[in-house]
Amino acid sequence: MGIRSANDECLKRIGESTAVLVDIRLARDVVPGMGDKTVYHAGPPVDWDQMCGPMRGAIIGATMFEGWTKSPEEAVALAERGELRFDSCHNHRGIGPMAGIITPSMQVHVVRNEKYEIETYSTLYMGVGKVLRHGAYDQTVMERLAWMNGELAPLLRDAIHRAEGIDLKSIVAQALQMGDELHNRNKASNALLLCALYPHLVAVGAADKVETAARFIDGAGHFVLNSVMAGCKGMLDAGGGIDGSTIVTAIARNGVETGIRVSGTGDRWFTAPAPRIEGVYFPGYGPDDANPDLGDSAITESAGLGSFAMAGAPAVVQYIGGTPQFALETTQRMYEITATEHDTFKIPNLNFRGTPFGIDIRKVVETGILPVINTGIAHRNPGIGQIGAGLTEAPLECFSKALVAFAETQGVTA
Amino acid sequence: MGIRSANDECLKRIGESTAVLVDIRLARDVVPGMGDKTVYHAGPPVDWDQMCGPMRGAIIGATMFEGWTKSPEEAVALAERGELRFDSCHNHRGIGPMAGIITPSMQVHVVRNEKYEIETYSTLYMGVGKVLRHGAYDQTVMERLAWMNGELAPLLRDAIHRAEGIDLKSIVAQALQMGDELHNRNKASNALLLCALYPHLVAVGAADKVETAARFIDGAGHFVLNSVMAGCKGMLDAGGGIDGSTIVTAIARNGVETGIRVSGTGDRWFTAPAPRIEGVYFPGYGPDDANPDLGDSAITESAGLGSFAMAGAPAVVQYIGGTPQFALETTQRMYEITATEHDTFKIPNLNFRGTPFGIDIRKVVETGILPVINTGIAHRNPGIGQIGAGLTEAPLECFSKALVAFAETQGVTA
Repeated sequence: MGIRSANDECLKRIGESTAVLVDIRLARDVVPGMGDKTVYHAGPPVDWDQMCGPMRGAIIGATMFEGWTKSPEEAVALAERGELRFDSCHNHRGIGPMAGIITPSMQVHVVRNEKYEIETYSTLYMGVGKVLRHGAYDQTVMERLAWMNGELAPLLRDAIHRAEGIDLKSIVAQALQMGDELHNRNKASNALLLCALYPHLVAVGAADKVETAARFIDGAGHFVLNSVMAGCKGMLDAGGGIDGSTIVTAIARNGVETGIRVSGTGDRWFTAPAPRIEGVYFPGYGPDDANPDLGDSAITESAGLGSFAMAGAPAVVQYIGGTPQFALETTQRMYEITATEHDTFKIPNLNFRGTPFGIDIRKVVETGILPVINTGIAHRNPGIGQIGAGLTEAPLECFSKALVAFAETQGVTA
Repeated sequence: MGIRSANDECLKRIGESTAVLVDIRLARDVVPGMGDKTVYHAGPPVDWDQMCGPMRGAIIGATMFEGWTKSPEEAVALAERGELRFDSCHNHRGIGPMAGIITPSMQVHVVRNEKYEIETYSTLYMGVGKVLRHGAYDQTVMERLAWMNGELAPLLRDAIHRAEGIDLKSIVAQALQMGDELHNRNKASNALLLCALYPHLVAVGAADKVETAARFIDGAGHFVLNSVMAGCKGMLDAGGGIDGSTIVTAIARNGVETGIRVSGTGDRWFTAPAPRIEGVYFPGYGPDDANPDLGDSAITESAGLGSFAMAGAPAVVQYIGGTPQFALETTQRMYEITATEHDTFKIPNLNFRGTPFGIDIRKVVETGILPVINTGIAHRNPGIGQIGAGLTEAPLECFSKALVAFAETQGVTA
């Protein structure tokens, strides 16, 4: 079929996809290919010797959490001996913010695209500051990780089962009417998730444990993000692998390279050096401390959220910088590189117009307009953590490489 | 002092006021003047023979709830014999949405303006549709009222005590960044209230009762409104009675008349016939079924919320009608009749400009621009309930009468 029909089919599949949080399970029991010493990470595949600092830091923490090593030094030695089996989360229905590390003993959200029977997986959100996904691994990180996996996750699992699933797509649609862009502003969606979970948490858990869990999820602010990311991946994966489609199905960064996937070229990555981030820094940090762009969270932009929805989330500029006018203009610019408008995700102050949806690599290359990404900023060294938040773009090179490869699949040679 | 200084003082007091939900108590134990057969109602004072249908309906329900009567017929007879002591809620630190009925056995929110040591009171929100405040009084209304007063209220009280109060002013400020205008759209503020209450509800209540309460508050959608209204009254009352001030401290409607109070003229009401409402009707109802404007909830507009904040709440138009552009223009117009901009209540998509704050009767009379009010629509007959929601205005006559009276207090005669 022609490109237009292929893109229509791709976007129809993504658009009618669902995203329901159905379970919390151990990664080893559900994430495909997850075996002993397996470490999945954000972005396109990358080896230890090429990895950025925060990803190395997160892996150090993860190996200690798993009990594979007892110290950062042992962890580095283990990795250098080649004993860890690295791969990209995206290659295994996984998705991870920032370093995005998933190892076998971590509890993961199980999110179902019921329409297309796709299950996707993401770890639990740890909060801001000194956290594993930003490369921190000190005692506080290890303790929180143990509590989240040992106590919070089973409680959430029981509540989710009792609720017979939490409809994340509905939460996203509602939160877009409530000032969230669902990537760096999750205040409404997090509250809606809590309101959906609470009646069940109360029923399944001891009062003191429920209180602790409730305070953590509320205080973490962005807890809902990881399950929303899994939801976005499940929807976009439903649109993957359609011959002739030029729609982007993933944007992901490993802190060294940014990679994109395109429906018509399947699981192949098209990469370019990861860019720096323009942002707002926490006190005591600045641009020289920052790692380049990192994490799978740009899946939200790929799905019509994040910067693509920030016209309706003016308050996000208090976190990532800029002005409400800038937020508005950013979203408006994204309509120039997308194929259509989302049927379910609407922007109230654009008269309920659907968010720009379906990044078309042809439009990116033609116009030179790059997909904007709202994102957190990790310190470039392992062991430190989050130091700010801001904005960046997916590099043009990803899209031009993808377009060349796409043309070849269509029998066109340069 | 001159008008300018008086208005500055008035707005300083209102602006620096707090609003903390500190308790739930029986009206007879806390609301000033609340004795046997006492019935406080919304708007300026009105007698039984002048009352509108939904207010009569709510009073019928309240007398049965109190056990003063056993049937609607007995209730009407009781009222006609003059055995009920009617007065305006506003005259007793009370405030009530729509009919606004408060009787001695009803549980009320206790909201403190800690800065000025003012306590205000409002009943608990019942939901939409067939509810007491809209004049319904059938068996389902009576049962819900009994459950709210007997089971929900004590549970909330214990949770509020354990939380050491809930900061409503903070919830309002946050919700304005989340698409609420706090009068007809309370989705974010209601969720924030729940998130603040939950950890304590879990700790103080039996699991099944907490679950029922949580589902009710979440499902009611606007549960937070009544305590926010009490908060607004507590703030505005702090600005009342300042000689020389032309700032409006209350707008309230009894369904027959709209009344306003002005700081410089104290507790005096300036009234005019209550206008009709332009609105969106529930299926099966239309303008001919509608009662004129009713309720104390315009206290939100008086405090810089409601229509005065709807520029930041575009999604409210799905409930009350109009377009996001209309919502934006409405708020912008209100800047022309207000003295200043709010220091704490900000509109994100107006670049975090403070909401229009401090309605100045001189500006209303000079410009002819009337304060817009977002409101619910009650059926004009007793016993039916809510039939829609929409927009109306406070009549010019209230403001011109007030200005004449104000001039007289300043030694100026017409």
